[in-house]
Amino acid sequence: MLNKIMIATNNANKLREAREIFSPLGIEVVSPREAGVSADPEETGTTFRENAYIKARTFHALVDMPVFADDSGICVDALDGRPGVYSARYAPDGNECEKLLGDMKDVPEGKRTAHYACVIAFVDGDTEADFSGICEGRIGYEKRGTNGFGYDPIFLRGDRTMAEMTPEEKNSISHRSAAMKGLYEFIKERYGE
Amino acid sequence: MLNKIMIATNNANKLREAREIFSPLGIEVVSPREAGVSADPEETGTTFRENAYIKARTFHALVDMPVFADDSGICVDALDGRPGVYSARYAPDGNECEKLLGDMKDVPEGKRTAHYACVIAFVDGDTEADFSGICEGRIGYEKRGTNGFGYDPIFLRGDRTMAEMTPEEKNSISHRSAAMKGLYEFIKERYGE
Repeated sequence: MLNKIMIATNNANKLREAREIFSPLGIEVVSPREAGVSADPEETGTTFRENAYIKARTFHALVDMPVFADDSGICVDALDGRPGVYSARYAPDGNECEKLLGDMKDVPEGKRTAHYACVIAFVDGDTEADFSGICEGRIGYEKRGTNGFGYDPIFLRGDRTMAEMTPEEKNSISHRSAAMKGLYEFIKERYGE
Repeated sequence: MLNKIMIATNNANKLREAREIFSPLGIEVVSPREAGVSADPEETGTTFRENAYIKARTFHALVDMPVFADDSGICVDALDGRPGVYSARYAPDGNECEKLLGDMKDVPEGKRTAHYACVIAFVDGDTEADFSGICEGRIGYEKRGTNGFGYDPIFLRGDRTMAEMTPEEKNSISHRSAAMKGLYEFIKERYGE
């Protein structure tokens, strides 16, 4: 039976989400900070999957428990899939929504399709496995809403942005929760209930 | 407890895969043909999710059981995400690999990234839910391998095409199996074990 697993991030939101998912299985989720380790691996991959494995393997080398890491981003069709794996580094000044709206200013309605993608990599020393999810939508013309983070204020599902949804609504459709379902299923199968 | 579920396709491979997944739960998977119904809904959506729901809702209106449907395709970054939802209709003559290789002939290495995506929609009259997965890779320069179907002979993971993998290998990394994990998890939670 598995008692403890590390999530390769100190992000409080991701940590809380992972705890909600795994506590019913009796599995404790710990962050690097809680385990007393730190690392800042360079995300040199060209895919979400490669970057997720870079992070999971780096932290697994430091601790004696299974580790999972996610990598995610937004892929805009009219921009050849950019910013993609560079989503977190797209706007050096941190105004990623403004930068993306600017880059999309000449893109007509009907060509503004985009998707969020998430890949989660799991590493335990014996096995590696990965899980994925997407969330399809469109890029709007202005920021709307105050929930969420990143590109959520300009990412439309129907006529609402992801930042106009409650956390529960977002969670029910998000790329990350889709990938987490795969991880959850894998953990249950591998370690028993 | 759920005894029976319909998969909104008569495709033998998808039907067999769904049976392998759901038989351990004691759930029988039936095709439209086996249920004595038929429909050919027009896939007018601009996203995989929309098309998956179109198919699931259409068949659910004809039968007295939950229905799930998948929609999937390949999204090439250098082609603004095309063929995407049009993957199955991209080459009218059926030679989709040749058409895509032709459209990519001037695209240099390093810009040939692509991903398969799959969305599965579930409809049971009370609830609708959807699940997704991706498989990231690159478009090669020639067809290789005889397994799989569709764009598999030109879709590279590392140095092998998806058509050079065994069905088991493909299944362990495929966009469809990632989405099916989400559906499986949902079914287990909703209908008990």
